[in-house]
Amino acid sequence: MNFDQVDLIIRDCTILPLANMEIINDGLIAIKDGKISYVGKVVNAPEMTAENVLESQGKLAMPGLINCHTHLAMTLFRGLAEDITLERWLNETIWPLEAKLKPQDVYIGALLGCLEMIKNGITCFADMYFFEPEVAEAVKKAGLRAVLASAIIEAGDFEKGRKMLKEAVGFAKRYQGYADGRITALLGPHTAFTCSEELLARVREEASKTDLGIHIHIAESKEMAMNIRKERQLSEVEFLEKISFLEDDVLAAHCIHLDEKDIAILVKKGVKVAHNPVANMKLAQGIAKIKELIDAGITVGLGTDGAASNNSLDMFESMKIAAILQKTNYKDPTVLPARKILEMATIKGAEALGLEDQIGSLEVGKKADIILVDLSKPNLTPLHELYANLVYSAHGYDVDSTIVDGKILMENREVKTFNEKEVMEHAQNTAFNLLKR
Amino acid sequence: MNFDQVDLIIRDCTILPLANMEIINDGLIAIKDGKISYVGKVVNAPEMTAENVLESQGKLAMPGLINCHTHLAMTLFRGLAEDITLERWLNETIWPLEAKLKPQDVYIGALLGCLEMIKNGITCFADMYFFEPEVAEAVKKAGLRAVLASAIIEAGDFEKGRKMLKEAVGFAKRYQGYADGRITALLGPHTAFTCSEELLARVREEASKTDLGIHIHIAESKEMAMNIRKERQLSEVEFLEKISFLEDDVLAAHCIHLDEKDIAILVKKGVKVAHNPVANMKLAQGIAKIKELIDAGITVGLGTDGAASNNSLDMFESMKIAAILQKTNYKDPTVLPARKILEMATIKGAEALGLEDQIGSLEVGKKADIILVDLSKPNLTPLHELYANLVYSAHGYDVDSTIVDGKILMENREVKTFNEKEVMEHAQNTAFNLLKR
Repeated sequence: MNFDQVDLIIRDCTILPLANMEIINDGLIAIKDGKISYVGKVVNAPEMTAENVLESQGKLAMPGLINCHTHLAMTLFRGLAEDITLERWLNETIWPLEAKLKPQDVYIGALLGCLEMIKNGITCFADMYFFEPEVAEAVKKAGLRAVLASAIIEAGDFEKGRKMLKEAVGFAKRYQGYADGRITALLGPHTAFTCSEELLARVREEASKTDLGIHIHIAESKEMAMNIRKERQLSEVEFLEKISFLEDDVLAAHCIHLDEKDIAILVKKGVKVAHNPVANMKLAQGIAKIKELIDAGITVGLGTDGAASNNSLDMFESMKIAAILQKTNYKDPTVLPARKILEMATIKGAEALGLEDQIGSLEVGKKADIILVDLSKPNLTPLHELYANLVYSAHGYDVDSTIVDGKILMENREVKTFNEKEVMEHAQNTAFNLLKR
Repeated sequence: MNFDQVDLIIRDCTILPLANMEIINDGLIAIKDGKISYVGKVVNAPEMTAENVLESQGKLAMPGLINCHTHLAMTLFRGLAEDITLERWLNETIWPLEAKLKPQDVYIGALLGCLEMIKNGITCFADMYFFEPEVAEAVKKAGLRAVLASAIIEAGDFEKGRKMLKEAVGFAKRYQGYADGRITALLGPHTAFTCSEELLARVREEASKTDLGIHIHIAESKEMAMNIRKERQLSEVEFLEKISFLEDDVLAAHCIHLDEKDIAILVKKGVKVAHNPVANMKLAQGIAKIKELIDAGITVGLGTDGAASNNSLDMFESMKIAAILQKTNYKDPTVLPARKILEMATIKGAEALGLEDQIGSLEVGKKADIILVDLSKPNLTPLHELYANLVYSAHGYDVDSTIVDGKILMENREVKTFNEKEVMEHAQNTAFNLLKR
């Protein structure tokens, strides 16, 4: 690799490469053609010139955070229909509003979500929603990386299911590798309740044929899990295994209501899990047994879920809450230590999305998806232990700069790829108009 | 009241007065001699002139948040000894370090804590620690309001217990009303385990004689609660009632391990509770039954606990986590709705500290302890529902300005009462030196 001329240098920072690497003090990262070409001590770096240099004293460079499960455009519904049951939330507010959604609404809602994520140091996210081409356009505009699935919800309507699957496959074919390769497409069947056995089998067939992964909700609601058991004498996971749906290309969001047999099936099939502690708590759906899943060898990433059930897109918050929720659940403060949590939000998230060769750690050859965290903050002082401060004391607003594919999306908290104020105003108007329709 | 000349006007903001009052749009707050002299619509305000005007379009004025339980100087230990048991945390790290603490360390640790709280919109806090005069000096410097208790820990040493009680009473006498009346003093016996029955009786006697309240930890650790039951055949609360310790001047932190009889005793005695969800979760001490306590009629405020067990002093975070933890605990998303949580962090917190006549809501005649929240943030867009956005989407960094007694402590996120950088550097050095002693 030629070190003489690079595109961007980040220098004099502390570096947390993650994966299994140690902290580097007085570090330097060089970026060329969107990839990391050097990461290490300043003193060991070869001579090089750069178009752009970020002098980063007092800052930490770490992999961008990976949000493994969200419905981005639901930012438009943030704060609506609070403190009610999941059933009322869906039936009385969310589903009626979603029926009124137009493509342009989804675009602006997704752009608002991108804005919030860039501000919070999230560089890649997995989304499942309607009008997903609009989400892809928002991602392209914002400069983020994303793993997008066009949602497939049959809900008893066979024709609708077929049509949505066709659309989803069409979306995947068109948008795979879109936005300079920053977009990966998956298929997004909603759940084993809202899609029939036949449709799920078709989704599996398409996924295997076209080499697309699958993003689905599994075992989120206890009530629905009980319904399926009543109907089929099988757990949700057992049912999905029986119809040969589960493979190692499946990203399963939630996985709260699992027994030992279910966990063994997920292990055997290599299914990946996206854990969403905040939304699970807020909707009172129960506590996923994340310690057991990880101990069993399952890859677990972390997600925010949509802003309508979280209600923010802050992975620092999700890291802290994931950690303390598992400690509470197992009545053991040693469960899920800070470093493990940071891995869930980075390299394990990358694994969950099948992108571990490209992102999730700071290594030569990987995509330059990097955030700079400003360590000179009252809430991060003193700095005894970096892992602990990042998981238990940091928030999204401590992120100073966000870089994806070597491109600076935010610097000194100012977003570069679009006008923040315009996006907020537009989103506010869109959300209000939606309620009036 | 004379409206002609006031000290400070906050205008064109949205106002959330709380207590039982409704939201005011296009509002104005006038402040004279540290108190609120007008709160209402701009159009209804009498003519007045002011020394200082905060034009606050797009901002929300609400009561400053009240942190009902912390050990402020423990900011120095932030991030040390993470992810270990409470026993190891205390025995191997916290207590050995506390044995080395000097008054000047506590001053700088407390000032760092004040800095973080001002940044997060906390205007009043209840503290219990050692070298409490130093905390009082930090509070005076920072401009905050505080309810301070000099900790009394006997730990089997009768003479030490007597000495600490004497010191605590001395502190209370000297600092009651200190810093222009912003400081209230309480007595702070640590727990029913670390103080003997005799010492607790003396504390009660002193408290009643001198009209001081009491700040104590109750039912935090399940293990200790079981020990006391084994030893005395009484629950911790029953024991404290038996020795006539419990009165309506007691602020009880935690109250996790209570049964119905315990709750009935707290109701009968009018004991106030400080709930600390983040620290309870992080140390895996269990989940307090806050819904039941509130339903029973107990006044429950909200606290962060010390930064060594939280690890941040952000009441917005504590509000969100309190809400979603109770929903999870009762498997019911309707439990503790956003408005109730906001009350816990404001007017109920004031009640818990016995200051409800002075602070906790924005009303004419109350102290002007006010924060301005910047609503023009991605995470607070769209604004469908103010209560929900504040509890579920806002963080401390959305606070733009912090005002106590009518004095601006922070404006546009810049702290006015001391040099932020100096305090952080000083705290960092102090914390590092402490480890080397």
